[in-house]
Amino acid sequence: MPEIIEPRVLKGFRDYLPEAEQARNSLLTRLETVFRSFGFVPIDTPVLEYAEILLGKGGGETDKQVYRFTDNGGREVALRFDLTVPFARFMAQHVEELYLPFRRYHMAKVWRGENTQRGRYREFMQCDFDIVGTDSASADADIVLVIAQAIRTLDTGNARIRINHRALFNRFLARAGCLDKSVSILRSVDKIEKIGKEKTKALLAAEVGKGIAGEVMDYISPEKDFINTLEKMVSFCASGDQEAKAAQKRLHDVYEIVFAAGSADSLCLDPSITRGLDYYTGVVYETFLSDLPSIGSVCSGGRYNELAGLYTTRSLPGVGASVGLDRLLSAMEVLKRPLAQESLPQLLIANLGEVPEVELHRRASELRFRGISTEVYPEPKKLTSQYSFAQKKFIPYALLLDRSALERKVLPLRDLGQRTTREFSNLDELVNFLEAAKT
Amino acid sequence: MPEIIEPRVLKGFRDYLPEAEQARNSLLTRLETVFRSFGFVPIDTPVLEYAEILLGKGGGETDKQVYRFTDNGGREVALRFDLTVPFARFMAQHVEELYLPFRRYHMAKVWRGENTQRGRYREFMQCDFDIVGTDSASADADIVLVIAQAIRTLDTGNARIRINHRALFNRFLARAGCLDKSVSILRSVDKIEKIGKEKTKALLAAEVGKGIAGEVMDYISPEKDFINTLEKMVSFCASGDQEAKAAQKRLHDVYEIVFAAGSADSLCLDPSITRGLDYYTGVVYETFLSDLPSIGSVCSGGRYNELAGLYTTRSLPGVGASVGLDRLLSAMEVLKRPLAQESLPQLLIANLGEVPEVELHRRASELRFRGISTEVYPEPKKLTSQYSFAQKKFIPYALLLDRSALERKVLPLRDLGQRTTREFSNLDELVNFLEAAKT
Repeated sequence: MPEIIEPRVLKGFRDYLPEAEQARNSLLTRLETVFRSFGFVPIDTPVLEYAEILLGKGGGETDKQVYRFTDNGGREVALRFDLTVPFARFMAQHVEELYLPFRRYHMAKVWRGENTQRGRYREFMQCDFDIVGTDSASADADIVLVIAQAIRTLDTGNARIRINHRALFNRFLARAGCLDKSVSILRSVDKIEKIGKEKTKALLAAEVGKGIAGEVMDYISPEKDFINTLEKMVSFCASGDQEAKAAQKRLHDVYEIVFAAGSADSLCLDPSITRGLDYYTGVVYETFLSDLPSIGSVCSGGRYNELAGLYTTRSLPGVGASVGLDRLLSAMEVLKRPLAQESLPQLLIANLGEVPEVELHRRASELRFRGISTEVYPEPKKLTSQYSFAQKKFIPYALLLDRSALERKVLPLRDLGQRTTREFSNLDELVNFLEAAKT
Repeated sequence: MPEIIEPRVLKGFRDYLPEAEQARNSLLTRLETVFRSFGFVPIDTPVLEYAEILLGKGGGETDKQVYRFTDNGGREVALRFDLTVPFARFMAQHVEELYLPFRRYHMAKVWRGENTQRGRYREFMQCDFDIVGTDSASADADIVLVIAQAIRTLDTGNARIRINHRALFNRFLARAGCLDKSVSILRSVDKIEKIGKEKTKALLAAEVGKGIAGEVMDYISPEKDFINTLEKMVSFCASGDQEAKAAQKRLHDVYEIVFAAGSADSLCLDPSITRGLDYYTGVVYETFLSDLPSIGSVCSGGRYNELAGLYTTRSLPGVGASVGLDRLLSAMEVLKRPLAQESLPQLLIANLGEVPEVELHRRASELRFRGISTEVYPEPKKLTSQYSFAQKKFIPYALLLDRSALERKVLPLRDLGQRTTREFSNLDELVNFLEAAKT
């Protein structure tokens, strides 16, 4: 007999047992329904790509987080670490076969050799949706509407979708004469949620002096509503600044569309959100659950001018966001929004060893035909074992076909939660009862 | 400006454009519905595992087909090359947290550095379903019933599910005195579909002599029905052979259950199928579409005594099968069973530049609320461009909201296939029409 190999997974990797996998699947299915209702279509790309594609020509000093290796054919390859870079490559490669604007969603795993001590996983799923090929308020607004509808569908309570525009902050900094320090200023502002206002102000003062630090703090404090906040932000820029005016118009148009579509309640203009502004070029988004703001943004994104600049000279402006699946899953657990049950079998046909198994399978087949998920226990075993099996699997009912039931032509149904048994005189009655019990 | 990197994927890898991805998703969704109706639950395992787990302790001389490397932490890791080995590890690791019998399905990608010249891909999706923890005819039959129901659901015409039992062939060979040559005999028999009866017989004769070759050829020829074939097969074994009798009873029980459940039409006993008999220990399955037998088996599997013997001393008998997704997808294409359309947006709200965009989004929002997938074209463009966009995306209708329509309070709907326009006087009428058009 060979030596036993200890069954284990790599650090930072995990198995999904049925309950967790069902919850994740239900979440993905609900998100998909929302994406599709807005005309987004799914795509898929390879898990493994040329390292050069994923990391760029300068990817010589490999990022430690990337799983990179030489394949058996001598190619330098890497596992994708996000869905954005493969999507950029995909668009550059296939744009002629597609149509623009192209709305896609992609829900798939990515890999990063992160430090697992912070509770991070090295394999996790991402869920991105983007609209490419248009620089319009209509597309920017659609991203907000998708987020708002997703939150409604998931039933996780109210959410605040915080929006901002990268250009306004920059034009304000330009007027204040410290555009050259924008990266460090934005980095300090980004910390405000974690370190608080006072410390942020101190950090800023150390960088740009007390006066401008005060202006920045004033700039990033929202007013009572979207329109007033927007006006204040513009007032911090030079008067007549065309770039600032264009950003103001864009945010205003987005607001009006979101309002017309009935989702303005969830939208707020937050001058403090920045989201790695070197990548985004227009609007940016973050989404916080009102009942659980502490878990962080559950959906973030923004507009970028050039998606695929590394792979094509063709201009492909886009806007999109990424859903924080793991955060949403834990939110739904905390908020007690059960997802796993949606796809569970409804009925166990117990195997009492008293009637031929063919009878059990005949009934199971009839029940499935009528839309009832049905499982036949495959061997005669103690009824208590079969009940305990059903309960571990969250199956709510068991059909107890013994000799007496067969002779009396009844269908005894055990409610495994209530521990009561009820007899049905025919299959239609049983199916009606189970159908009604589904909701 | 940086040098452009040529956008391309690795040899043997492929992107899924929306149409292909939608078709694959629809296929997976339909299969999932069938699996669930039989009480199967989904699981997931990591893409990357310890090489030792996937390849065994003796995995020193790496199989060329396996993507294997050393990660940044110095661990020997590999991409999974099937879903069976990870499932064995999963069961050994989690059996105490689960329940038995455990019915799981797993639809996920695997990687093999295969020779791509034969039209094989190095990244492809597998779809496995198994019942572990029971050695029973009931479970063996459930696999047949799942296959039969899957074929019905996919609407690919009739199918033949060929079944056999490993023990019967072995007991026949034992009686004939050539059990020691079973591997090469089975290998020859396995070629019968490709090389024909005559050549197979010649191969066998060279190995075991003309007499036994004749017996083998006789043995593997089915009789007129399941029961007669079974009787003939047993008659080739020694009389009183208990192992043969047990196999006969098992096949007979499976047949009776499948018959009771209404799927006996699809089932046939085929003494010639072997399926790598060193792995399987009981029944084996293959499935051929009657309208497209040439594409090969679209679902194959069998019973194995020890799933997880490498990782645990606990006995875990199982039975299962694997769906040939790529074969089924191409079959559905050849048989003109469109899968992609199921999830397409139904309506484009054209952007004519005549009415405010907020109006377009307001209507879109109302339509989505009523269950109509709706996309707003994000910029005013020539109507012909918008029509061509919709047609490339298989969107059947466009709503043409111009100033006149708004003034007259009508909703002009363009049928992009028929090239006709019809006016609706309110949203309910429009929704009713679109709902009716869905089917």
